[in-house]
Amino acid sequence: MFEKYLDNTRLKTPLVHNITNYVTVNDCANILLACGASPIMADDVNEVEEITSICNALVINIGTLNERTILSMLKAGRKANALGHPVVLDPVGAGASSFRTATTFQLLKEVKFSVIRGNISEIKTVSMGSGTTKGVDADVSDTVTEDNLRDAIAFAKGLSRKTGAVIAITGAIDIVADSGRAFVIRNGHALMSRITGTGCMLTTVIAAYCAANPEDMTSATAAAVGAMGLCGELAYARLQREKTGTSSFRTYLIDFMSNMDGEVLQGGLKVEIR
Amino acid sequence: MFEKYLDNTRLKTPLVHNITNYVTVNDCANILLACGASPIMADDVNEVEEITSICNALVINIGTLNERTILSMLKAGRKANALGHPVVLDPVGAGASSFRTATTFQLLKEVKFSVIRGNISEIKTVSMGSGTTKGVDADVSDTVTEDNLRDAIAFAKGLSRKTGAVIAITGAIDIVADSGRAFVIRNGHALMSRITGTGCMLTTVIAAYCAANPEDMTSATAAAVGAMGLCGELAYARLQREKTGTSSFRTYLIDFMSNMDGEVLQGGLKVEIR
Amino acid sequence: MFEKYLDNTRLKTPLVHNITNYVTVNDCANILLACGASPIMADDVNEVEEITSICNALVINIGTLNERTILSMLKAGRKANALGHPVVLDPVGAGASSFRTATTFQLLKEVKFSVIRGNISEIKTVSMGSGTTKGVDADVSDTVTEDNLRDAIAFAKGLSRKTGAVIAITGAIDIVADSGRAFVIRNGHALMSRITGTGCMLTTVIAAYCAANPEDMTSATAAAVGAMGLCGELAYARLQREKTGTSSFRTYLIDFMSNMDGEVLQGGLKVEIR
Repeated sequence: MFEKYLDNTRLKTPLVHNITNYVTVNDCANILLACGASPIMADDVNEVEEITSICNALVINIGTLNERTILSMLKAGRKANALGHPVVLDPVGAGASSFRTATTFQLLKEVKFSVIRGNISEIKTVSMGSGTTKGVDADVSDTVTEDNLRDAIAFAKGLSRKTGAVIAITGAIDIVADSGRAFVIRNGHALMSRITGTGCMLTTVIAAYCAANPEDMTSATAAAVGAMGLCGELAYARLQREKTGTSSFRTYLIDFMSNMDGEVLQGGLKVEIR
Repeated sequence: MFEKYLDNTRLKTPLVHNITNYVTVNDCANILLACGASPIMADDVNEVEEITSICNALVINIGTLNERTILSMLKAGRKANALGHPVVLDPVGAGASSFRTATTFQLLKEVKFSVIRGNISEIKTVSMGSGTTKGVDADVSDTVTEDNLRDAIAFAKGLSRKTGAVIAITGAIDIVADSGRAFVIRNGHALMSRITGTGCMLTTVIAAYCAANPEDMTSATAAAVGAMGLCGELAYARLQREKTGTSSFRTYLIDFMSNMDGEVLQGGLKVEIR
Repeated sequence: MFEKYLDNTRLKTPLVHNITNYVTVNDCANILLACGASPIMADDVNEVEEITSICNALVINIGTLNERTILSMLKAGRKANALGHPVVLDPVGAGASSFRTATTFQLLKEVKFSVIRGNISEIKTVSMGSGTTKGVDADVSDTVTEDNLRDAIAFAKGLSRKTGAVIAITGAIDIVADSGRAFVIRNGHALMSRITGTGCMLTTVIAAYCAANPEDMTSATAAAVGAMGLCGELAYARLQREKTGTSSFRTYLIDFMSNMDGEVLQGGLKVEIR
């Protein structure tokens, strides 16, 4: 069932415009190429509209947010909206500073996002900038566990209803939800949090999958989340076998993404629909 | 014949000043060290002239072009010209936005480049900013193949005549030309386009080779292009043997550059002079 | 004796705020995670005070210094001082341009550093901006060798007295000194200078170790320097065994840091106290 999202990405080789941070940008470019897409990184206000116009999707990642690129994010986002391109938000560190939180809120107000991906803490901050009923959100725990999964799913569905975006909350258990459906994905490995960039990489792979599968971006996002998690599992197994460490793990992760095919993906996914 | 360009680079350890993009900058620094040179990355307008003065070559790469560094590129370029240092242009994405195209044209007007390296599409954009007779250029195809190779060589030689720069057009077949001679290089592997940075890395290796071999920068550029292509072939063979993926391929590429010696280079080159 | 500095870092998982360059930033983030800490990279003047407030240490690295972030460095530095957080300076390229030298002097004047790490040339520049008696400093050679070690140690102790910072001079022989004690560390391998980022990575590991061991930052810095050097030795041995190259060496270096434990560290250290 999920093969086609991967296969379409390899077939259509979408071009993904990234306005992103300088920490993980190289990994993002390489994993886009590994998953079958192509990257363009461009953040100057003089060119972002033109660049996004020749692309198939846009990623806005606020990882090393700075004043110079906020206007670029807004202009590119509006242009991508006008063109009907998928736009994916990664609100890195939203909540950690008022600058990031305020920028996240401004982006949510002026740009319509197709998908928003973050950890539970970032997504809770997004939620505070997306609506009026804050009471419910405050009940969601800071870690998604089997115990509070039902509440987290309800929260994600509710936030999707408010924002119109597919909501991807990633952590030990991943949730991908629109207003009606939620995919619960139990792939991945804890070591993924011992390297930088797994979140950023996933966000840009989501953009590629959505660009190639615009007819069902919820499923496409779930497929990307599952693919990334599966690569993490395979990478961990290889690290164990070769007795290496975290930097090798990063290499393996991208290696497995570059070799992933629909059959491996479908066979390795641990997805539940709720 | 080509050994000496590599050997001189290892012997003279040139210091290469890079004003470059933040996507592939780490790979560029590492491949410079791997080929025997040393990198300095500096882009602030307050220091670029001083920095370039203590270096042996300058690379201007517009990969993540932004307003802040255009003046830095111009100042560094003029200073390097005044000092007689090789200056290499990588017009990444020229033609993809009017901002990049206009900046490329401005750079071509105000800085004298020793070498310009890009894919055929970027080099065609360079050509439009470099002279008056555009008619001929428009005839060059968007991919260099055995069928249109003769035309592409004539185009490269003509552009070298107009700009005074060695022209390096890289792709499945690589062309390195000055106004009189062209090297056709058939090294490399298709997987090189499945990772980010092979073009940027090559550009900065060219700068190192030219700094170490100023008496024949056409041959030095051809040697650098051949060395990079050969590393791609060796890296692909290792990937096949070890059954890894694209991120390992990137590691292997730089590994082979760090171990390359004149004998291996000369033995592996597939170069034709036309 | 040195185990506890490593063990405390893994135990306390300090959060380290980095205002750093875009060349080696990814390596810095990954080695922080590898040594048991967590990274935040943030350089916008609107958020650096808030970000540094939620962290346990601050690194200021001037590797790709630009006008935009100088004020951020000053604001973050003063805030970290006010909060009593360790602040570590990496004066990359101080002395190579008057812009870097002047900024280094300004930082030294307005921020109190816990540790300053650089090569001998950078530290000599620091020395010129740190006091009135320049005569003695000028006698220190440009390379620390067994022959001039005594003078270099006296220089480091004197500079520590002037600045109040632990001084870490790294090279073939490493010196870590406060005003009373000096650790001479003979770990490491020459290949560490054939990849970019070993200095930057070490600086941020020092910050992590100091955050986790504030009661003795001189010893904590020595432990970090020794750990990095030991990883270099182990990485070189693996490179020899696997017949790879410099890019693999970088991967191994971070791998070994991720697997390093107190016992391996203590067993491998070559430290002398003078």
